[in-house]
Amino acid sequence: MNLDEARQLLQNIKNGSMSIEAGIKELEDLPFKDLGYANIDNHREIRVGYPEVIYCDGKTPEQIRGIVQFMLTKGNNILGTRASEEAYDAVKEICPEAMYDKLARVITIKKKDMEVSESYIAVVTAGTSDIKVAEEAAQTAEIFGNKVERIYDVGVAGIHRLFGRLDLIRGAKVVIVAAGMEGALASVVGGLVDKPVIAVPTSIGYGASFGGMSALLTMLNSCASGITVVNIDNGFGAGYAASMINKL
Amino acid sequence: MNLDEARQLLQNIKNGSMSIEAGIKELEDLPFKDLGYANIDNHREIRVGYPEVIYCDGKTPEQIRGIVQFMLTKGNNILGTRASEEAYDAVKEICPEAMYDKLARVITIKKKDMEVSESYIAVVTAGTSDIKVAEEAAQTAEIFGNKVERIYDVGVAGIHRLFGRLDLIRGAKVVIVAAGMEGALASVVGGLVDKPVIAVPTSIGYGASFGGMSALLTMLNSCASGITVVNIDNGFGAGYAASMINKL
Amino acid sequence: MNLDEARQLLQNIKNGSMSIEAGIKELEDLPFKDLGYANIDNHREIRVGYPEVIYCDGKTPEQIRGIVQFMLTKGNNILGTRASEEAYDAVKEICPEAMYDKLARVITIKKKDMEVSESYIAVVTAGTSDIKVAEEAAQTAEIFGNKVERIYDVGVAGIHRLFGRLDLIRGAKVVIVAAGMEGALASVVGGLVDKPVIAVPTSIGYGASFGGMSALLTMLNSCASGITVVNIDNGFGAGYAASMINKL
Amino acid sequence: MNLDEARQLLQNIKNGSMSIEAGIKELEDLPFKDLGYANIDNHREIRVGYPEVIYCDGKTPEQIRGIVQFMLTKGNNILGTRASEEAYDAVKEICPEAMYDKLARVITIKKKDMEVSESYIAVVTAGTSDIKVAEEAAQTAEIFGNKVERIYDVGVAGIHRLFGRLDLIRGAKVVIVAAGMEGALASVVGGLVDKPVIAVPTSIGYGASFGGMSALLTMLNSCASGITVVNIDNGFGAGYAASMINKL
Amino acid sequence: MNLDEARQLLQNIKNGSMSIEAGIKELEDLPFKDLGYANIDNHREIRVGYPEVIYCDGKTPEQIRGIVQFMLTKGNNILGTRASEEAYDAVKEICPEAMYDKLARVITIKKKDMEVSESYIAVVTAGTSDIKVAEEAAQTAEIFGNKVERIYDVGVAGIHRLFGRLDLIRGAKVVIVAAGMEGALASVVGGLVDKPVIAVPTSIGYGASFGGMSALLTMLNSCASGITVVNIDNGFGAGYAASMINKL
Amino acid sequence: MNLDEARQLLQNIKNGSMSIEAGIKELEDLPFKDLGYANIDNHREIRVGYPEVIYCDGKTPEQIRGIVQFMLTKGNNILGTRASEEAYDAVKEICPEAMYDKLARVITIKKKDMEVSESYIAVVTAGTSDIKVAEEAAQTAEIFGNKVERIYDVGVAGIHRLFGRLDLIRGAKVVIVAAGMEGALASVVGGLVDKPVIAVPTSIGYGASFGGMSALLTMLNSCASGITVVNIDNGFGAGYAASMINKL
Amino acid sequence: MNLDEARQLLQNIKNGSMSIEAGIKELEDLPFKDLGYANIDNHREIRVGYPEVIYCDGKTPEQIRGIVQFMLTKGNNILGTRASEEAYDAVKEICPEAMYDKLARVITIKKKDMEVSESYIAVVTAGTSDIKVAEEAAQTAEIFGNKVERIYDVGVAGIHRLFGRLDLIRGAKVVIVAAGMEGALASVVGGLVDKPVIAVPTSIGYGASFGGMSALLTMLNSCASGITVVNIDNGFGAGYAASMINKL
Amino acid sequence: MNLDEARQLLQNIKNGSMSIEAGIKELEDLPFKDLGYANIDNHREIRVGYPEVIYCDGKTPEQIRGIVQFMLTKGNNILGTRASEEAYDAVKEICPEAMYDKLARVITIKKKDMEVSESYIAVVTAGTSDIKVAEEAAQTAEIFGNKVERIYDVGVAGIHRLFGRLDLIRGAKVVIVAAGMEGALASVVGGLVDKPVIAVPTSIGYGASFGGMSALLTMLNSCASGITVVNIDNGFGAGYAASMINKL
Repeated sequence: MNLDEARQLLQNIKNGSMSIEAGIKELEDLPFKDLGYANIDNHREIRVGYPEVIYCDGKTPEQIRGIVQFMLTKGNNILGTRASEEAYDAVKEICPEAMYDKLARVITIKKKDMEVSESYIAVVTAGTSDIKVAEEAAQTAEIFGNKVERIYDVGVAGIHRLFGRLDLIRGAKVVIVAAGMEGALASVVGGLVDKPVIAVPTSIGYGASFGGMSALLTMLNSCASGITVVNIDNGFGAGYAASMINKL
Repeated sequence: MNLDEARQLLQNIKNGSMSIEAGIKELEDLPFKDLGYANIDNHREIRVGYPEVIYCDGKTPEQIRGIVQFMLTKGNNILGTRASEEAYDAVKEICPEAMYDKLARVITIKKKDMEVSESYIAVVTAGTSDIKVAEEAAQTAEIFGNKVERIYDVGVAGIHRLFGRLDLIRGAKVVIVAAGMEGALASVVGGLVDKPVIAVPTSIGYGASFGGMSALLTMLNSCASGITVVNIDNGFGAGYAASMINKL
Repeated sequence: MNLDEARQLLQNIKNGSMSIEAGIKELEDLPFKDLGYANIDNHREIRVGYPEVIYCDGKTPEQIRGIVQFMLTKGNNILGTRASEEAYDAVKEICPEAMYDKLARVITIKKKDMEVSESYIAVVTAGTSDIKVAEEAAQTAEIFGNKVERIYDVGVAGIHRLFGRLDLIRGAKVVIVAAGMEGALASVVGGLVDKPVIAVPTSIGYGASFGGMSALLTMLNSCASGITVVNIDNGFGAGYAASMINKL
Repeated sequence: MNLDEARQLLQNIKNGSMSIEAGIKELEDLPFKDLGYANIDNHREIRVGYPEVIYCDGKTPEQIRGIVQFMLTKGNNILGTRASEEAYDAVKEICPEAMYDKLARVITIKKKDMEVSESYIAVVTAGTSDIKVAEEAAQTAEIFGNKVERIYDVGVAGIHRLFGRLDLIRGAKVVIVAAGMEGALASVVGGLVDKPVIAVPTSIGYGASFGGMSALLTMLNSCASGITVVNIDNGFGAGYAASMINKL
Repeated sequence: MNLDEARQLLQNIKNGSMSIEAGIKELEDLPFKDLGYANIDNHREIRVGYPEVIYCDGKTPEQIRGIVQFMLTKGNNILGTRASEEAYDAVKEICPEAMYDKLARVITIKKKDMEVSESYIAVVTAGTSDIKVAEEAAQTAEIFGNKVERIYDVGVAGIHRLFGRLDLIRGAKVVIVAAGMEGALASVVGGLVDKPVIAVPTSIGYGASFGGMSALLTMLNSCASGITVVNIDNGFGAGYAASMINKL
Repeated sequence: MNLDEARQLLQNIKNGSMSIEAGIKELEDLPFKDLGYANIDNHREIRVGYPEVIYCDGKTPEQIRGIVQFMLTKGNNILGTRASEEAYDAVKEICPEAMYDKLARVITIKKKDMEVSESYIAVVTAGTSDIKVAEEAAQTAEIFGNKVERIYDVGVAGIHRLFGRLDLIRGAKVVIVAAGMEGALASVVGGLVDKPVIAVPTSIGYGASFGGMSALLTMLNSCASGITVVNIDNGFGAGYAASMINKL
Repeated sequence: MNLDEARQLLQNIKNGSMSIEAGIKELEDLPFKDLGYANIDNHREIRVGYPEVIYCDGKTPEQIRGIVQFMLTKGNNILGTRASEEAYDAVKEICPEAMYDKLARVITIKKKDMEVSESYIAVVTAGTSDIKVAEEAAQTAEIFGNKVERIYDVGVAGIHRLFGRLDLIRGAKVVIVAAGMEGALASVVGGLVDKPVIAVPTSIGYGASFGGMSALLTMLNSCASGITVVNIDNGFGAGYAASMINKL
Repeated sequence: MNLDEARQLLQNIKNGSMSIEAGIKELEDLPFKDLGYANIDNHREIRVGYPEVIYCDGKTPEQIRGIVQFMLTKGNNILGTRASEEAYDAVKEICPEAMYDKLARVITIKKKDMEVSESYIAVVTAGTSDIKVAEEAAQTAEIFGNKVERIYDVGVAGIHRLFGRLDLIRGAKVVIVAAGMEGALASVVGGLVDKPVIAVPTSIGYGASFGGMSALLTMLNSCASGITVVNIDNGFGAGYAASMINKL
C-alpha cells in the first residue's frame, strides 16, 4: 500500500464508501505491506506461476504432505528439495501429477506453465558423481523458468573434454560449476569464460576432502576472478542465484 | 580461425596468393586462436578502456612499478589491489596521476574515461570496520565502469538502520554485503531483496571469529536464498563478480 | 551447620543432653554441610517438588529405569532428556503416568504440582526443524515451573514473520533463540529486545554448517550485546539457564 | 499503534475530527513506531544516564575521538572497549575527565551518576592473567550501574582458594567466570552455585589452547547446568549480559 | 602435427597432391592433436593393453556395469577401485572372468597380458589393518604391469620387524608406505632407504586420529627427506604414482 | 653381546674351542640381540605370565581367532581390546575359558596367575557414561597384575561426590581420570593429589564436544601440573601406562 | 581430624578439659584441614626445600619480581618458567644469585640444596630445535631434585643416532621425548623401551605442522603403548610429571 | 659386512692373520654397518661431491656457521635452506665463496663439480608469488646435480599460458608444481602430463586459504592420478624427492 492508496482509503472512510471495519482489515495487513514485505510476497510467493519451495530434509512425510496441501490451494508450481522417496509417496497421495527425480531428490508439481528465458544457464560438472547436485541446480532453475544446458563430466583430469564443450558454456548468461574432490574445475572455467560463475562444491571425495571442505576452500580461494560460491552440495542455492542473474 | 577461414587459407596457398611460410605463420598461432584465447584477451586485456588488475600483495614495490610501466604502454586503466603505500610511492614515480585510497589499499590509474552503467551496485556493510573491504569492492566496481551506491554501518545490532536504507538497496541490480563478526547481515538483506546478493565475509572480529571464518560459515549456510559468497576480505572478487552481473 | 549451631552442639554434649555418639554423627556430616553442599542439595535435589534430571543418552533402558525407580522414592518430579522410545517403554513399566514427547525426546513424570512463574520465557526458533531442540528447552523450563511462550519458525529469510510476533517476544523476562544453518536469528532478536537472550545453535543444516558449528560461531560472534550461548542442540541447558534467570 | 488506536483514527477521519493529511502522517510513521524501534532507542541510546558504547578495536584514534565528540553532545556516560592508549590520548584532548584502565583497555567517561544496584555481580577468574578480561567485564557492569565483587585467581589447580571465597560468590545474583587454559573453573563454579553463570573463555594459554578455543569448548560442554558462554576474551559481552540479568 | 608436417601439408595443397577438403580434415583435428591430447589418449586410454580405471564409489552397480560394457569393446584390461560386492556381481553378469578382491575392494579384468617390470615396488604397512589400503595400491601397480613385493605389519611399535625386512625394502625402485594411527613408519622408512617413498595415510585409528588426519599430518611433516604423500586411504593414487616412477 | 663377550668369542675361535660355523651363528643374531630387541621380547612377549594384547577393532572374528590360537601356544595370558561379541564368539570356540566384558569390550584369557601389586591404581570417572572407557583401563591394568580401585561418577557438577572419595584416590600410586564432555575432572583431581595423573578424554558428549576433542583439549591445557594425557577413549593406553608406573 | 580425634574432642568438652570456645576453634578449621588441603600445602608449597613455581608468561616483570620477593620469604627454591630476559633483570635486582637460562627461558633460584634422586630421567629430542623445550623439562626436573640425562638430536631421519644412545635411554626410570615436525621419535622410543614415556610435542616445523598440532596428534595416536602426552611445548609439565614418577 | 666377510674375519682370527683386537675393532662397528647405516652414510653424507643439507630455520647464525665449519672439513657441497641474510653473513665470514639466493632463502657452497643429469626436472608455478618456493625446489635439485627447467606464472586463471609451455613440461622426467591460493594448477598439469607430478602447496593467498591449507587439500584430493604432495612451502622436499626420481 503506497501513500496514494492510503490517502484513497482514508477518503473512502471519510465519504462512507468503505466501512470502518473494512478499513481496519486493510490496515491490519499494513505492517507487512508497508515494510515492503508484500513486495517480497509478490515476487516470491504470490505472483501467479512462481514456484513455492519446500526444503524437505528434516521434515516428516506427513509434514511435507501438509505443506504441499496448503500450497496447492494457491495454485502455484511447487518445488520440494532434498526429498526422500517416502516424502514423494506421501505427496503423490494428494497430488498424483507430482513428479520425482530420484537422483536430484527433487519433487516438482507444475500447476501452471512458466515463460522460459531465452538466455540459458550452463550447468557444468567435473564428474558423474557431481550430477546429483547439478541436477538439483538445473531443475531448480528450470522450474523457475530458465532454460538450462547441461555439460557433465568435463573435469580437469581430462581437460580436453572441457574444451570440446567450451562454446556451449561460453554462450550461457551465467554458469554453474559443480565439482567435488579438489574442485579445480571452477577455477579453470572461471579463467575461460567472461560470465558470472557460481561454484558449488560437492561432498564427493574421500579422505582429506572432508565432506566437501576441500572443494569449498578451492573455490573460495580461486585465482580466477568473478567466481562466487554457495554451500557444499547446495544445488538449490546455485540454481536460485543463477535464476536471479539470468532474469536480470 | 573458423573452417571457412581455414579453407580460404588453403585456397590462397594453392593459388599462390600466400607463401607457404606465411601460411605456416598463421597455423602456428592456431592453437591459441582457435581455442578462443584471443577472445579472452579481447575481453580481459586488450579491449581499449578496460582496466588491468594487479594483485600487489606479496610483490615488491619494484615489481609492481615494473608491471605498471609495462601496462601503461597499452593505454588502459589500471587497478592495483592490496597495495601498500610503498607500492604507491614506487608507482607514482613513473605515473604521477596515479591515485591511492589508503583505506581500501587500492591504486587506480585512469587513462581513459569509461562509460558508466545506469543500473547500480549497492555496497552494504554491517559496521564501520568493514568499510575497508567494502571500498575495495566499490572502487573495483567503479573502475570497471559501474555506478555504486554505498550503504554503510547498517548491521543487525540496530536493524532499524537497515530498514531506513532499504529502498536504496532494493533499487540496485546486484547487492554486495560485507560483514564481519557473525555476518548475519547477509542473511537479513538476502531475505529482504529480490536481487543477487554477493556476500563478503570480513576478518573483523575477535576470539572465535577465527579471522573471518565465522562470518564465512554464516554466509555459506544462509537460510536466505540467492546469496553467493566470496573469500574472506575479498572485496575485489565481490566487486568484479558484481560488475559482471551488473553489465548483463 | 553454622557456628551458633556448633556452639549449641558442644553445649549439649557438655551438659549431657546429647550423647557423644549422637554428636559424632552430626560431625560426620560436617564436611559436606559446612561447605554448603547440603545447600546445593536443598536447591537441586532435596527441596520438595523440584525436578530430578536424567541425561539418558548413553545409558541403557535398564539403567534409566533403575535411576527412575530410585528417584521415585523421593517423590519429586522427574525429567529425562535425550530419551529414546525404548527408554520410555522401560520407564513406563514401573511408572505408568510417565509422559514422553517424541519430538523433544523428553520423559516427564509429574509427582507434584509446581507453582508456575508469572513472568514467562519466550522460546523462539528460526525454522520448523529447530523445534525439537526448542521443545527440549521449553519443556525443561516448564517442568522447572516456568511459563513458556513458543514463537516458532520466524527465521530471517522472511523477517516479517519475526516482526509480527515481536511484542510477545519483548514481553518475556528472558528469551531463548534456537537456530541452525547460519543462526542469524539470534543476532536479530538480540538487536530488537532488551532482555537476556540465550542462543542455542542447532545442528540443522548441511555442508559447511558442520553439525551446528556454523550457527555456534555466529552466535558467539554476535554483534548484538547481551547474548550468551549454550552448546549445540543443548535445549536442556538453555531451558535450565533461562529458568534460573526467570526466577530471579 | 494497536487496532483500537487504528479504529479510533479511522473514526476521527470519518467524523472529520482529523484531517486526511494528519491521518496520512500518522500512518507514514507506522513502520518504525509500531515496531517499537523508538523503544529500543529509549532503552539503548536516548534514555538519559545510560552509557554509550564504542568498540574501539579497528578504529583510528581520530575516528574514536570523533564518535566521542558526537556522543558527548547527548550528555550520557560513555564506555570505550578495546581502546589503545593512543585512542585514549585522542579522547582526552576533547574530554579531560575521561579515565583509562590500561589493563582492561577501557575508556570511561562519567557525565552523570547512575543508581547502583543493590544486588551484585561476582566476577571470578582462574588466574591472574585472566584479570584483564575480567576487568573489562567488571568495569562494563559498573558503568551500567551494577555493584561488582571481584574474586580473582581462584583456579582449580588450588581449589581451596575457591572454597575460601565461595560465600561471596554465592551471594551474587549472577556470576561471571573468566578462565583460560582449560577453563575448568566455570564447571566447578557452576556445580557449586545456584545462580546464572556466564562463562568467558580467555585466550590465556599456549600450545593446544588455540587462542582460547580449548577454554571455549570446555565451557560449552560443561557438565554443570545453567552455564552460558560468550566469545573468547569478550569481557564486555559478559558484563553487558550480567548487567541485564542483575537488573531484572 | 609439428611445423615440418604442417609445411608438408601446405606444400601438398600447393602442388595439388592433397585436395583442399582433405587438408581441412587434417586441420579440423588440430586443436586436440596439436595440444597433444591424443598423446594423453595414447598413454592413458587407447594404447593396447593399458588398463582402464573406474572409480566405483558413488556409482550404482548398473552404471558400473554400463561403463565396463563400453570399455570391454576396447579390449583393454580394466581396474575398478572402491567397488562393492554388488558392483562386482553386476559386472560378472557381462564379464564372467572379472576378479574381485574383497579386502582391497578392487575389480580386475585381464583381457591382455602385460609385460611386467623387472624392478619392483615395495608396499609396506605398519599394521594388519592397513593392508586393505596397501592391497589397493599393490593391485593397482600390478595391473599396470609392475612387480610388487609386500612387506606387511612392520610398524614402529616393534621396530625389529622392520629391520628384518629392510633388505627387501631397499631393493625396490620405489617404496609405498601405508600407515594409520600416528603414521610414524613413513618417517622411519624414509630415513632408512634412499629411494622415493610414497606415503599413504590410512584412516585406521580412533579418537584424535580424526579419520586419518593424524597420519596425514605426520607424513606431510616428516623430518625424513624424499617422502611425498597422497590422500588418506588413497591406495590407488599411491599405486599409480609408484607405477609411473617404477617405469621411468 | 658386549665387547668382552665378543673378545671371548674371537679367543674361542682362535684357540679352536669354537668352530667357525658356531661363531657365524652367534654373529648372525647380533643385529637383533645386540640392539636388545630380545630384551623387548622378554619384557613384552616372551616372559611367562605376561599378557599378550590384541587390538581387535578392524580385524575380522576369523583373524582374531587365528591370532588367539597362535598365542595360546605360548601359554601366556591374553587381552583383546575393542572386541565385538562376534569376535568373542569366535574366540570361545577354541578357548572356552575366555571371558568377555561387554561394557569394556574386552576379552581376557587367563592361563596363568599373575602376582598382584600391593600399591594400587585409582580409576576415576566423571560420569556413568565414561565407565566403559574406564573399565578398559581398569581391566587392562588388572590383567597386567595391578590392583585397581574404581571411583566412578564423581564429576565436578556435584563436586562433593569427589571429596567423599578423595582419600581413596590419594592412596593410589597413580591415578587414571576418564572424563568426557568438558573433562574438567582431570584438572580438579590433578590439583588435589600429588601423584601422577593420567587423563583419558572420552567421546561422551554432544554438539561442540566434537567426539572427545573438547575433553582432550581441556586435559592438555590443564592448569594443574603433573597431568599427562592419552588419546580419546584410549582406556587401554591409560591402563598400560599406569601399570608401568605402578610397577616402578 | 579423624573420627577418633573428633570423639576425643567431644569427650574433652564433656569432661570440661576443653572449653567450648577452644572446641569451636578446632571445628572452624575443619573444612580445610579435614579435606586435606594443608596436606597439599605441605607437599606443594610449605615443605622446606621444595621449589615454588611461577609461570611468567603474561605477567609483567614487576609482577614477577613481586611474586619472587614474597616467595623468598619462605626460603624455598624458586623456578620461573617462560621468563623473558626483562623478567630476569627485574628478579636479579632483588635476588642477585638468580640464574637464567636463555634457551629454556627459565629462572632458577637455589636457596637450599635438594637431595638428588639416584634413578634418572632421560630427556630425548628429535632435533636441535627441540632442545629449548627439552631444557625446560630437564631444568624443571633438576630443580625438583632429579638426576637428568640429556640425549639430544637423535630423530628418526637418521635412526642410527638413536640406537647409539639406546642404552642410556633404557637405563632411565622415566623417559621424556620432545619432538616437533611429525613427532615420530616418541613412537619409536616407545617401541624400544619398557619405561613410562612422556611425549612433548614441540611447535618446531612449518606448513601443515600447525604450530605443533601435527606432532601432538602423532603422539596421541602412537601405536606404541605406554606413551602419555603433555601440551605443545610444555616442557615444564613433562618435567614435573616425570619428577613425580621418578620419585615413586 | 655380509656373512662371507664375517666368515673370512673369523678365519683370519683363527689362522692368526688378524689380531683379536683388530677383530674387535671390526665388530665394534658392526651394529651400524650390518644394519646398513653406513650404506645410508655413503649415499647421504660420505660420498664425495654429494651435498650436505642444513635446515637453518630456528638455528642461530652462530650455530649455522658452526655446522658449516664442520661440514667444510668433509669437502662436500653444502645447501642451507630457510636461511636468513644474517645466517648468510655469518657463513660468509668463514667461507667467502658461499652464495645466497635472497628469494629462495638458500645458501649454496660448491666445493666440487657435480655431474649434471641429462633428463630434467620441470618446476612450474601458478603465480609469481609462488616463485620463492619454486626456487627452493629448483636450487635444491640443481645442487643435487639435476638439470632444471623453470616454467613460472602459468596458473589456470589464464590457462593459455600453460598450454604455450606444455611441450617443455612434458619433456621433463618429473614435474614439480608449486601453487598457492586454490592450487588448481597441480590437477590441470597432472591431467596433461604422463610423468610423476610432485605438488607443493604454497602459503600464498589470504582469507580462507588458511596459510596454504586450501592448496594442500586441493592437491591431496586431486582428481588427476599420479600426483603426490609435500608439505606447505616445502620446496626443499619437492626438490629432493624429484632429484631421487630423476636419477632413477
